[in-house]
Amino acid sequence: MSNTFGKSLRVTTFGESHGGGVGVVMDGVPPGYQIDLGAVQHSLNRRRPGQSHLASPRDEKDQVVCLSGLDRQRTLGTPLTLVVYNKDFKSGDYDDLSQVYRPSHADYTFEKKFGLSARSGGGRASARETIGRVAAAAVCEQILKATVPQLQVVAYVDEIRGVKAQVDHPERLTREEVDQTPLRCGDQKAYEILEREILQAKRNGDSVGGTICCYVKGVPVGLGDPVFDKLEATLAQAMLSLPATKGFEIGSGFAGTRLYGSEHNDAFYLDQGRVRTRTNRSGGIQGGITNGEDIYFRVAFKPVATIFKPQESVAKSGEPVTMQPKQGRHDPCVLPRAVPMVEAMTVLTLMDHFLRQQMIEAVRG
Amino acid sequence: MSNTFGKSLRVTTFGESHGGGVGVVMDGVPPGYQIDLGAVQHSLNRRRPGQSHLASPRDEKDQVVCLSGLDRQRTLGTPLTLVVYNKDFKSGDYDDLSQVYRPSHADYTFEKKFGLSARSGGGRASARETIGRVAAAAVCEQILKATVPQLQVVAYVDEIRGVKAQVDHPERLTREEVDQTPLRCGDQKAYEILEREILQAKRNGDSVGGTICCYVKGVPVGLGDPVFDKLEATLAQAMLSLPATKGFEIGSGFAGTRLYGSEHNDAFYLDQGRVRTRTNRSGGIQGGITNGEDIYFRVAFKPVATIFKPQESVAKSGEPVTMQPKQGRHDPCVLPRAVPMVEAMTVLTLMDHFLRQQMIEAVRG
Amino acid sequence: MSNTFGKSLRVTTFGESHGGGVGVVMDGVPPGYQIDLGAVQHSLNRRRPGQSHLASPRDEKDQVVCLSGLDRQRTLGTPLTLVVYNKDFKSGDYDDLSQVYRPSHADYTFEKKFGLSARSGGGRASARETIGRVAAAAVCEQILKATVPQLQVVAYVDEIRGVKAQVDHPERLTREEVDQTPLRCGDQKAYEILEREILQAKRNGDSVGGTICCYVKGVPVGLGDPVFDKLEATLAQAMLSLPATKGFEIGSGFAGTRLYGSEHNDAFYLDQGRVRTRTNRSGGIQGGITNGEDIYFRVAFKPVATIFKPQESVAKSGEPVTMQPKQGRHDPCVLPRAVPMVEAMTVLTLMDHFLRQQMIEAVRG
Amino acid sequence: MSNTFGKSLRVTTFGESHGGGVGVVMDGVPPGYQIDLGAVQHSLNRRRPGQSHLASPRDEKDQVVCLSGLDRQRTLGTPLTLVVYNKDFKSGDYDDLSQVYRPSHADYTFEKKFGLSARSGGGRASARETIGRVAAAAVCEQILKATVPQLQVVAYVDEIRGVKAQVDHPERLTREEVDQTPLRCGDQKAYEILEREILQAKRNGDSVGGTICCYVKGVPVGLGDPVFDKLEATLAQAMLSLPATKGFEIGSGFAGTRLYGSEHNDAFYLDQGRVRTRTNRSGGIQGGITNGEDIYFRVAFKPVATIFKPQESVAKSGEPVTMQPKQGRHDPCVLPRAVPMVEAMTVLTLMDHFLRQQMIEAVRG
Repeated sequence: MSNTFGKSLRVTTFGESHGGGVGVVMDGVPPGYQIDLGAVQHSLNRRRPGQSHLASPRDEKDQVVCLSGLDRQRTLGTPLTLVVYNKDFKSGDYDDLSQVYRPSHADYTFEKKFGLSARSGGGRASARETIGRVAAAAVCEQILKATVPQLQVVAYVDEIRGVKAQVDHPERLTREEVDQTPLRCGDQKAYEILEREILQAKRNGDSVGGTICCYVKGVPVGLGDPVFDKLEATLAQAMLSLPATKGFEIGSGFAGTRLYGSEHNDAFYLDQGRVRTRTNRSGGIQGGITNGEDIYFRVAFKPVATIFKPQESVAKSGEPVTMQPKQGRHDPCVLPRAVPMVEAMTVLTLMDHFLRQQMIEAVRG
Repeated sequence: MSNTFGKSLRVTTFGESHGGGVGVVMDGVPPGYQIDLGAVQHSLNRRRPGQSHLASPRDEKDQVVCLSGLDRQRTLGTPLTLVVYNKDFKSGDYDDLSQVYRPSHADYTFEKKFGLSARSGGGRASARETIGRVAAAAVCEQILKATVPQLQVVAYVDEIRGVKAQVDHPERLTREEVDQTPLRCGDQKAYEILEREILQAKRNGDSVGGTICCYVKGVPVGLGDPVFDKLEATLAQAMLSLPATKGFEIGSGFAGTRLYGSEHNDAFYLDQGRVRTRTNRSGGIQGGITNGEDIYFRVAFKPVATIFKPQESVAKSGEPVTMQPKQGRHDPCVLPRAVPMVEAMTVLTLMDHFLRQQMIEAVRG
Repeated sequence: MSNTFGKSLRVTTFGESHGGGVGVVMDGVPPGYQIDLGAVQHSLNRRRPGQSHLASPRDEKDQVVCLSGLDRQRTLGTPLTLVVYNKDFKSGDYDDLSQVYRPSHADYTFEKKFGLSARSGGGRASARETIGRVAAAAVCEQILKATVPQLQVVAYVDEIRGVKAQVDHPERLTREEVDQTPLRCGDQKAYEILEREILQAKRNGDSVGGTICCYVKGVPVGLGDPVFDKLEATLAQAMLSLPATKGFEIGSGFAGTRLYGSEHNDAFYLDQGRVRTRTNRSGGIQGGITNGEDIYFRVAFKPVATIFKPQESVAKSGEPVTMQPKQGRHDPCVLPRAVPMVEAMTVLTLMDHFLRQQMIEAVRG
Repeated sequence: MSNTFGKSLRVTTFGESHGGGVGVVMDGVPPGYQIDLGAVQHSLNRRRPGQSHLASPRDEKDQVVCLSGLDRQRTLGTPLTLVVYNKDFKSGDYDDLSQVYRPSHADYTFEKKFGLSARSGGGRASARETIGRVAAAAVCEQILKATVPQLQVVAYVDEIRGVKAQVDHPERLTREEVDQTPLRCGDQKAYEILEREILQAKRNGDSVGGTICCYVKGVPVGLGDPVFDKLEATLAQAMLSLPATKGFEIGSGFAGTRLYGSEHNDAFYLDQGRVRTRTNRSGGIQGGITNGEDIYFRVAFKPVATIFKPQESVAKSGEPVTMQPKQGRHDPCVLPRAVPMVEAMTVLTLMDHFLRQQMIEAVRG
């Protein structure tokens, strides 16, 4: 089992819902940077469930604690460890389900992989695992911003159940603007439309999915490796490693396959001495390497697997069953909470490639 | 720069178009397997340019040579090295272009990353780099089939410029059936429609893109790691690491985001004692781990960047230029050649996760 | 900075003396094993300072806490995290020294490497960092013993300041026997002689070093990789990664270089159908791979750098100084505490190679 | 099986004696450096057997070929592949022995590990495997010298069968001086004494071992990681990964364990504003990190396992046998050829840690 992301900055997450806590060890953090743990906590608050009437009422708090790697708020260059302790876990909440393979959950595959029955609600497939990722990214973002101040990573909910948030100039959204609606869909108008979708699903004991779009602005030229670690390849891995994701497209994406080459190519031109592209169908990456234009990509999230309708399934003991779940504390839509997760994995990807490129630039002959 | 793919089986490709050769070193190959180098050569022939009237007339031959790792065709457990030597490289072919950043190519980003001007046509961004991947996968596929005989990995061209190949039962296609048309689009009817798209683009000096779909059948249960190395995450990285790719979706993909959870969930049932799912919107993977159902996914390929129309660009010397390329030897559509590349990266992904899972199964308590 | 050991089992330690705690994340732990945390605590107690009149009176307690990876004492196959929280750190103890580079400590080199002044007594060079290693090894040893019950890893203090513990049949020592003297030197007779060396150094405010010998019995055949990860190479790295080590020799070691090949070769013979060697100058490893005979090796530990005599040095501010340390709480000899560290790194090395070999055996054709 | 050394510069060797060739792929080579392949060839010539009357008459030639990574002798930043093709392999030479486990060779352990009988004389345990290491190091040394011109890595034969080469000022030896005697023992006087040892062993069909000492001068401050990748730990792994090695000691080594701390500590002083140490028992490394003083260490090589005397052994078919080898083409002493191998592994270790430290220095806050 591999729980580490990155090569120059290696982020290892740990923890299950039913253990002592969840967290992250970051190895390779550059020394000498001031880290504001309050900003880390703010990031964790953004991914916390129960932030609005649309979401589950569960309030996990998620108070972050730093165990190592900082001395007087400054990075030491040693492993930086962040933990959120588990509390208030009511294991009974999940007991009814624990003897049945929940459809489109990881119960069955975990059991087959590890040869033991993962306790329901626990396991590493839980969204709670992403706490470590979000916390690590909040540290990295502070380091990156200290070095590349113009860098901006902003994600927002782009579609819910196929209904698009029609935001003007999504590339100009700030994280603060995104946070102004509980759905993180960019503007109030979109919110009203999309909220309806979610509320209706909730009323029916059902769930919805959608897409998240992410923009990276102010990225340095030269990030990304030409072959297996093309920047878009690492981003694709990063995004598909998030729970409930089913797709990734960058720049022109799937729609771009409908264009002719002459329509798709991004012409180069000179803008005050700097080489830029007239269009940006490449999504800021060419040959796996950033060209300095905006990176943008979309991620598909399936509808939440936990629903409150009867479902056909199989008991672990081997009999067919019909699941009759009672109303519980799950979100009908993970996308608002997934926005900071998408941003976090983007930041971790950028940080790792940034460090790699810094080495190349430091040593090239 | 990172040129290695995989953790338990580590595949490192090397080589540029203008050097001595291209190839691969495979570390972690299990010992004791009979390898047919003829089958490796056959795989390389499938990815070779110039296989039909639709493609470039360039015939690279690509004769594979094994330098190490085999003794009397049997794997030794030592690094297995395969090389294809370069020949007939006419560097003049590219000279006109070498002073200009070609739009939507990697010239500009490589130069910025490495601090030196990559010779045109060379570099690791060339499709020729994939020779090592295809050769390595041809070895792995023989080992996998010796252990998991029912395993099948079959890709085909699904769409060209938005026009879909309407194949009945694509999940039943064999590789031999796919190879029966030069476009690898599944059947003769689809071929006739899609051929028109490509020929028209060719006549106009233009290019087209499209999508490739891949099915994996007979995959063992339990492959894939729960967090960063979810099987779909590794597949996404694998696919986005191929040249010209812009998107990846697995199972229900982007379309699945339009369904309710109650429509999307795959109900479990018992099929002669085996746990199966009624539907397969998960695409054979749940919680990052295979459940034994078919894996299927789609990959988006942008239209080829090399076209034969005037294009605005910038010279390396810093002046705006209009490129006027003369007719050359490039394909207007890479998708038929990309089919074996998609299959190769799929096989490398499966092999790596298969080895990891074999270890877990060997040691679990 | 690289804080991870192992490839199939990846052990990442974290923590400084002055932070929240020290610990370890273990990734790749096989699922389904019962772990006794009491045994982990016992191992930590063995490495704790202040266990005898010879050592420092500091009692750190070092209570281990498990944050993840276990469910009802059983390994989940997920990252297993163990933490020992720091307490009672009296930072003033070190303040006098903190403005001076202590001779043969890491103060100067850390400052030059990381560009910041590591707080004295802290840092990753502290012996306290080994808590994570010892805890991780205590987990691994339980898993290994469940699979290879005959495996024994026993280290003992072999020499103090050149005076050898003349133990009869050191290869038969058990860990319990070794623990019967505070010096862990094997027997009472040796203890009396070596104790004198240490007490004399202590009286003089001085320190001593020595060697530790380690035997591994009952090791499976086939562990170790033929090239860079020869078992002895990994062991050498493991040992030289412990604080204060200056040398490693395996089997016949440096003395073996004085023999002729005809004297040194280990003749093979058959012992009840099993291939064995008449002598064992190879130290149980041939070509980097275990042959089933006992592994044995010696590790050199320099005298402790912290002494209570005046020493010439340089202040961080750049002036020459003479250090006049007052009596503090340091051991005059680390070797008794290093015995469990040597065993721990041996176990981590064996565990990693054991997992790798299990994979090879599971998949070889 | 793991055939890669290094983290930032990853050197993967491949090849067996009986295959197509042996070589190396280097991933992570900094771009833009001029490489003289003649110097690489010169390094390979130094490790070639048959250079003097003391050694085997076998002349392998070992002509190096570059397959990738260079364009007009300049590094591209892409994988650099070097190959030496095998020729003139007379497999019959080894046939008599191939049915018997040769004492203190890897025949038995390889067979048990991989489950197949490695062809005698082949396999990765052969000294021929080190060709890739020496070639890679010859490239790295040119890059290092371009950046750190004062760096010198010089090894020499220190002892043969316990007889010490009494060289005045070994730390001042140059590689050219070392090469002036066929034994690479530093000076003519030592050569005459040590030559006698080897010739006598040769006459008796026997073999000898010894020690090699290596000095690194002009090394930058700050190389090495504080925990598992302490510079001495990586060096220890590097040295023990060479065939026939049994021990490693750095700085004061095993002899240093006999000193008191007050005798062993290296006092700091100021030398024209630079912090230096009065003595250098640390061997240039403190807390795993270089302090700018000379690194020096010793490596123990056992006597060559191939001898020309009758030996007891076991046939692969399972019967006891007495081996009666006829005179063959093996060296009675590998140490002169091992000198460039020791230097090569030292250079690869330094290069990897140099790149890592360049990254830290580039990004530290």
